[in-house]
Amino acid sequence: MGRLTARRPVLRIGTDGTTRRRPDSLAVEEPLELRVDGKPLSVTMRTPGHDVELAHGFLLTEGVIGSAEDLASARYCDSVDAEGRNTYNVLDIALDPGVEPPDASIERNFYTTSSCGVCGKASLDAVRLKTRFSPRGGPVPWSVLRTLPERLREAQKVFDSTGGLHAAGLFTADGTPLVVREDVGRHNAVDKVLGHALLAGRVPAADTVLQVSGRASFELVQKAVMAGIPILAAVSAPSSLAVELADEAGLTLLGFVREGAGNAYTHPERVAL
Amino acid sequence: MGRLTARRPVLRIGTDGTTRRRPDSLAVEEPLELRVDGKPLSVTMRTPGHDVELAHGFLLTEGVIGSAEDLASARYCDSVDAEGRNTYNVLDIALDPGVEPPDASIERNFYTTSSCGVCGKASLDAVRLKTRFSPRGGPVPWSVLRTLPERLREAQKVFDSTGGLHAAGLFTADGTPLVVREDVGRHNAVDKVLGHALLAGRVPAADTVLQVSGRASFELVQKAVMAGIPILAAVSAPSSLAVELADEAGLTLLGFVREGAGNAYTHPERVAL
Repeated sequence: MGRLTARRPVLRIGTDGTTRRRPDSLAVEEPLELRVDGKPLSVTMRTPGHDVELAHGFLLTEGVIGSAEDLASARYCDSVDAEGRNTYNVLDIALDPGVEPPDASIERNFYTTSSCGVCGKASLDAVRLKTRFSPRGGPVPWSVLRTLPERLREAQKVFDSTGGLHAAGLFTADGTPLVVREDVGRHNAVDKVLGHALLAGRVPAADTVLQVSGRASFELVQKAVMAGIPILAAVSAPSSLAVELADEAGLTLLGFVREGAGNAYTHPERVAL
Repeated sequence: MGRLTARRPVLRIGTDGTTRRRPDSLAVEEPLELRVDGKPLSVTMRTPGHDVELAHGFLLTEGVIGSAEDLASARYCDSVDAEGRNTYNVLDIALDPGVEPPDASIERNFYTTSSCGVCGKASLDAVRLKTRFSPRGGPVPWSVLRTLPERLREAQKVFDSTGGLHAAGLFTADGTPLVVREDVGRHNAVDKVLGHALLAGRVPAADTVLQVSGRASFELVQKAVMAGIPILAAVSAPSSLAVELADEAGLTLLGFVREGAGNAYTHPERVAL
């Protein structure tokens, strides 16, 4: 368990058409099933490791739990493969007795409200209904924000060898990394970061910046909002619904933060120039 | 419906810290709910447009349908937003009477088998059980394959303006594009391409190359295998399970195809050097 990379032979074809065999590092991808009180809740393809953090972050950002105490225990089930080895791919979560268990259709939670079915507006309404925390944090110097993609890359031990992992990092307002995680799925990398923060008593995550290596989708903004993060910064583009949600929820959303420049899509008052 | 981009004001912060307001193009992201015979099956965040193709591709690659005739009809429901406008975000599918409807837990379909629960091996087994077609196709010249990322970019009308869309294209062995689609979700871009191919009578997709703009995950290899595609090429890295599945299913998997070079991870005999 916890293997981030696997070695594998590959045929490298050069620009001149010549070939050579060489070993290559691949990002490991394996399914993880989360069960809550014995009932299967979700399956995600993830890079093994930090699965308990992933479970905390997932349940936090789906609105099931609001603090580390809401989760009574997390343990791997005795699921075994054909050779009888534990796969460490099924994690059983027990909620605290006072916590309402999620319903089976959690996939639909953030896309649907009873008022208008499935639409962008309904997705925004659903997040508003579930949010426990408000984004809290003063301005962060641009001189710090512009350095975070590079600090994220520095903290990534794996990226250079596989090129196949998304990264997410939670930073303080002076640019100190609190936690950095990598995963084949960008939502998993964020869940692992937020689960770590929850377990460390840092949720609601006031006065932090969440920096991600790729694009900013609705789902990533939703996760930042659910953790009370004030600033989300992405190296690539946001989507339309990501910007709408950030605007409405009071989150500062930065995109295309690269090579010292960037775009502020919402709430630029938290960027100190 | 069908809007690929939305305009939005943004505060651009330059490398010297100066700012200016300017309009920016964003990739549109909206939820789509698929219902089969009236029952909600899945919700995905996608770029609106080509939704009927998306539905065909999704149901093909989940193993529900094997030909265009298996799907009797697809029409938007009368779901309306707060202003009474149809959202075009709920698509109702009617299957042909002879087709077995999917069960509600379709999310788990490709991750679980009864023999060993949830593990990478089980995911490979599940694809093998559902595959209807074998990948068929002779060697394709490397001189063609190396040009496909550029041909994909040329066919993308939106990418340059938003930087926020994944692309997928199906090409013939001489590099002619059959169909190119873009989406905020890479799996949706592939579903739209494969749905188009199914409707055009090109599934099983013998003698084609599926070129994608990003990474190659287990899910994308699964989709290629389910459509009978012989070669999948990605601009970025594959995951470990993507390589394992491609190896077992007889698919040629290329990665890091960029700037005239590339890696063949499996079945390099289909690359003519």
